[in-house]
Amino acid sequence: MTVKSLDTDRAAPPSPPDGGHVRAVIENVTPQVDCGRHPIKRVLGERVHVEADVFTDGHDSVAAQLVFRRGDEEGWHGVFMQPLGNDRWRTSFTVTALGCWLYCVRAWVDHFDTWRRDLVKRRAAGQDLGVEFQRGAEMVEAAAQRARSDPLAHWAARLRDESAGAEARYRAAEDESLHALMRAHPDPGLVAHFPRTLAVTVDRVRARFSSWYELFPRSTSPDPLRHGSFRDCEARLPYVASMGFDVLYLPPIHPIGLAHRKGRNNSVQAQPDEPGSPWAIGAAEGGHKSVHPLLGSLEDLRRLVESARALDIDIALDIAFQCSPDHPYVAQHPEWFQMRPDGTIQYAENPPKKYQDIYPFDFESPEWRALWHELRSVVEFWIAEGVRVFRVDNPHTKPFAFWEWLIGEVKAAHPDTIFLSEAFTRPKVMHRLAKLGFTQSYTYFAWRNTRQELIDYFTELTRGDAREYFRPCLWPNTPDILTEYLQYTGRPGFMLRAVLAATLGASWGVYGPAFELMEHAPREPGSEEYLDSEKYQQRHWDLDRADSLKAYLALLNRVRRENPALQSDWSLRFHPVDNEALLCYSKCSEDRENCVLIVANLDVHHAQSGWLELDLDALGVEPARAFQAHDLLSGARFLWQGSRNYVALDPTQGPAHVLRVRRRVRREHDFDYFL
Amino acid sequence: MTVKSLDTDRAAPPSPPDGGHVRAVIENVTPQVDCGRHPIKRVLGERVHVEADVFTDGHDSVAAQLVFRRGDEEGWHGVFMQPLGNDRWRTSFTVTALGCWLYCVRAWVDHFDTWRRDLVKRRAAGQDLGVEFQRGAEMVEAAAQRARSDPLAHWAARLRDESAGAEARYRAAEDESLHALMRAHPDPGLVAHFPRTLAVTVDRVRARFSSWYELFPRSTSPDPLRHGSFRDCEARLPYVASMGFDVLYLPPIHPIGLAHRKGRNNSVQAQPDEPGSPWAIGAAEGGHKSVHPLLGSLEDLRRLVESARALDIDIALDIAFQCSPDHPYVAQHPEWFQMRPDGTIQYAENPPKKYQDIYPFDFESPEWRALWHELRSVVEFWIAEGVRVFRVDNPHTKPFAFWEWLIGEVKAAHPDTIFLSEAFTRPKVMHRLAKLGFTQSYTYFAWRNTRQELIDYFTELTRGDAREYFRPCLWPNTPDILTEYLQYTGRPGFMLRAVLAATLGASWGVYGPAFELMEHAPREPGSEEYLDSEKYQQRHWDLDRADSLKAYLALLNRVRRENPALQSDWSLRFHPVDNEALLCYSKCSEDRENCVLIVANLDVHHAQSGWLELDLDALGVEPARAFQAHDLLSGARFLWQGSRNYVALDPTQGPAHVLRVRRRVRREHDFDYFL
Repeated sequence: MTVKSLDTDRAAPPSPPDGGHVRAVIENVTPQVDCGRHPIKRVLGERVHVEADVFTDGHDSVAAQLVFRRGDEEGWHGVFMQPLGNDRWRTSFTVTALGCWLYCVRAWVDHFDTWRRDLVKRRAAGQDLGVEFQRGAEMVEAAAQRARSDPLAHWAARLRDESAGAEARYRAAEDESLHALMRAHPDPGLVAHFPRTLAVTVDRVRARFSSWYELFPRSTSPDPLRHGSFRDCEARLPYVASMGFDVLYLPPIHPIGLAHRKGRNNSVQAQPDEPGSPWAIGAAEGGHKSVHPLLGSLEDLRRLVESARALDIDIALDIAFQCSPDHPYVAQHPEWFQMRPDGTIQYAENPPKKYQDIYPFDFESPEWRALWHELRSVVEFWIAEGVRVFRVDNPHTKPFAFWEWLIGEVKAAHPDTIFLSEAFTRPKVMHRLAKLGFTQSYTYFAWRNTRQELIDYFTELTRGDAREYFRPCLWPNTPDILTEYLQYTGRPGFMLRAVLAATLGASWGVYGPAFELMEHAPREPGSEEYLDSEKYQQRHWDLDRADSLKAYLALLNRVRRENPALQSDWSLRFHPVDNEALLCYSKCSEDRENCVLIVANLDVHHAQSGWLELDLDALGVEPARAFQAHDLLSGARFLWQGSRNYVALDPTQGPAHVLRVRRRVRREHDFDYFL
Repeated sequence: MTVKSLDTDRAAPPSPPDGGHVRAVIENVTPQVDCGRHPIKRVLGERVHVEADVFTDGHDSVAAQLVFRRGDEEGWHGVFMQPLGNDRWRTSFTVTALGCWLYCVRAWVDHFDTWRRDLVKRRAAGQDLGVEFQRGAEMVEAAAQRARSDPLAHWAARLRDESAGAEARYRAAEDESLHALMRAHPDPGLVAHFPRTLAVTVDRVRARFSSWYELFPRSTSPDPLRHGSFRDCEARLPYVASMGFDVLYLPPIHPIGLAHRKGRNNSVQAQPDEPGSPWAIGAAEGGHKSVHPLLGSLEDLRRLVESARALDIDIALDIAFQCSPDHPYVAQHPEWFQMRPDGTIQYAENPPKKYQDIYPFDFESPEWRALWHELRSVVEFWIAEGVRVFRVDNPHTKPFAFWEWLIGEVKAAHPDTIFLSEAFTRPKVMHRLAKLGFTQSYTYFAWRNTRQELIDYFTELTRGDAREYFRPCLWPNTPDILTEYLQYTGRPGFMLRAVLAATLGASWGVYGPAFELMEHAPREPGSEEYLDSEKYQQRHWDLDRADSLKAYLALLNRVRRENPALQSDWSLRFHPVDNEALLCYSKCSEDRENCVLIVANLDVHHAQSGWLELDLDALGVEPARAFQAHDLLSGARFLWQGSRNYVALDPTQGPAHVLRVRRRVRREHDFDYFL
């Protein structure tokens, strides 16, 4: 068979190619995602460290320059790169505004630098430099002409001035300000450019450091018999804030379909009084731009958003692009759904299972453009109501190209928007969604429990190439995920999973109050579904139960807020322990002023002890000096020295140490003081 | 500062983008060099194994297809890829002609396959399939229309035929020939293409498997007082062939400049009778397209080339793009050289050192295009004389873009041409030259002597990404490189370096007769230059010396020719040994019929013994069965079993075993037979 439609990008170049005399080479620029196809991600104020291989033929000097700009700027900013050895060069720039930034690398053969370097050697060998000064002057004159620079013309004259004597001319040649001027004015015809311009998406800091709390608004009423409302949610805000969460995520808030409505525990037939699943979106009262009447009004939502903002909490809405059979779209736009030969609309299926309460959109519809525009308008609608954080339901069941376009369009207008990808599926699918623009991503954390699982997975997440685009958000539980682990490990298990999520991940979240109240009964043995799940019914929670973990979660979030080390992921390092039940890892701030060491007992049933083998260098600690390991959870302080230190953890007392590493600072009169 | 000239490739796409409904995704196609900027390399008859990540949103099946063609073909060939798991797909194609080949990957959502897969489940669940048969028929009808295919139309009718009964319609649906037809006719509007077309350069087999011998023609005269000639070289061919070499490389054969001619041992002033360095190219008699009068005529060279070809030996010429001050170019094209302010031409320098006998070309000259064309015509000139192999002198001192163009132009017309890059410089520079088109490259082999150095370097060369473009050619010595190792290790050292080069590298070479006669005196202590180097004088060699290694080299090359395992590099595996003085490695043919195991004693002064820990799987040997290790150098045969086997090597007997692994094949009557 033959394929005619495939174009080749190998059209014959002119022979010889234009620019054949450009001698500098730029290769392997990092960071770069899929050959520049996708942007890397940063948050406001972070540095982008850029490296490249830069070299030329022969022995001439080269100059390498990083150029960067905001996407909407006209001109480029340039900063010279420094050689690291082995033809690798490096420098960085800081992203100081939200949105898209661009960067690239350019380089050229630096003849003036070569000439200066050689001049030193010729002089040391006692060679006559007369002709050399003329050569240098020629270069400076050419640059003066290019740059229309009087200072350069002046320097050229000094190099030419035979009457000044060789020593004065040599001093001119080695002058650093002349060198800087010459570097600033290369011959543009001889400058090589890396062939791809690379992009950075710059988000607000919460994209990197966030603490999510999910609750069902309908379960927030103080009256167990009444459907909760936005007003009830507003009353719940101080509770959420007291635990230190800064994103409050609400499952879909829209009218819920009646057709094939699901009952308690996902029963196929709902009773008349049952509220249905919030993900069966759309009814006579409206669809994705409407609010469930029992939750209140748009005005109530706006109040909730504003009250939350006053507590520095973002309200996050759920984007679930699917319809109940009662959704107004179904009648108004049947062309957006797949029609079966028998004239019915195709409901969701995983044959032989049928989900007749859900109609998926048909993204291969001839009318896909109109569908895309409408779905974008849904997001824009809620943005107009003040919402800036969205948790996207099952993004992996809609086309990748759609998300890239939607997120790109929304963030171009509102770069402070955050999208969390709820895709629990195969790794490459999850990664593609992150590359295409999702700000944060759910992970496999809930199912990583053993020491080696945790080390492998978090080494991959924090050290692998994917960290440039994949920002993990760790959830010990969700309304869909009550892990076997949480079902069987009791209070120590909940505490352990919380401390792991809150310290392994700069972003984490819990589905509450199920989490802090340690809800752990599955619908049936072997299931990860909750018994009496809030997905299908409203629940009433006793927030004041004596065994609630709310104080523990509050403490974890306070430690996170007070320790920059825990607010990003790239510094994560695992340290060896001689007991397989103990997991030890650390995180440090970029300036290494703040280092936190976590030791967790993964055995929730027994006390465990062991010897740590700390990588002191990673902790910024000198081997010969004592340091304090200050447990920020218990308040205990341990005086340690060297890499080998003893730890014992009893799960009934707490599953982990979260230790601030306090380095000893020697003051006057040998008085010791710990930072 | 700002940079205006830098273009961004991020022009705004239409919103939504065209093709937004194309749902298949293709990522991470391998092999790929620098995002497809450079071709990979193969030789005639090799397979190219292509892999890609291919997936789509949701749960639909995808089809992935490798497409490929020769550069000069109109249409593409397609071959379906097979899933490897984790969304990775793989297949291969064979390159059956020299020159440029192209490949790419395309993929699409395979609705028909999804439908078939689900139909099986629906049937097993006892669902009514009537509407499903209609859905299937619709898909087949659409394909029939696209493909104008009567067979497909016929299949559609069978699916629609209610009178045939559900069972007959089901049998039609699961028919494999229908499936194949449907796969062959996807909707072209929904096919995704990997955005870059990738290229393969296909060389003749000698590009991968070659044995080089370098000699100075002027030293080939049987009369020590007479300058050797092409006729003398012709007489030397049987000697070269008897040692099994298949490329005979001659240093530059052109007239040698008189100005600043170098004398014996690189003295600055040559005596009147001294011949000068062949790399000081050009004199009154001519330049790069002329032959040194004392070597003979062009006619003599053609005879040499033809006589060599009759022995299956390629004559390789030296491409050294530089001029002596007497080169005709200097007078005819002063614009190709750099003029100094005092009106003199810039000679080669490494300040404060001066090389006044050499004028480098100025590739930044405004007349660089004319220079490029002239230099290309030099290569074309010798190709017209029958030469197809070139060793390029110091390519890293000429622009990279020039080599890419030159080699591309030459190989487009003569794809059987081989270029060996003589760049002993920094790794990234050497790699860039290989990427740009050099067929083979010199390596750091000469300076890798210890066990760990050898393991690290050859693991990098044979397992790293660079193997796709960098073909190593291993030289224990060259006229410029008499290593400290060879100066001090005597006959066992020469033998060891020969066996390492000949078995670690599918391509290797020696500079002879200096090598087989174990020439080892340096010009001065600490120097890697030969004393009385042939670079500056003619020498007379006693080829019949009793201690010559010629028989050993002949044996090595015979073993190489008889064992396909040694004719390529990618199968190289190192095996552990419990004695650090022993190095053990193996190579196997792709079909694993031919496996060779090398054990070398790196200690040339003492006998060493140790236990090997063989990776039997890499050798295709079953742990429970005995196998023969047959030493192809000594003829000895060892009966071994399992991974742990004992070896002892005395350097006075020979520095290495080169063992053919002969697997035991059980025949009738329990008679054992070794393949």
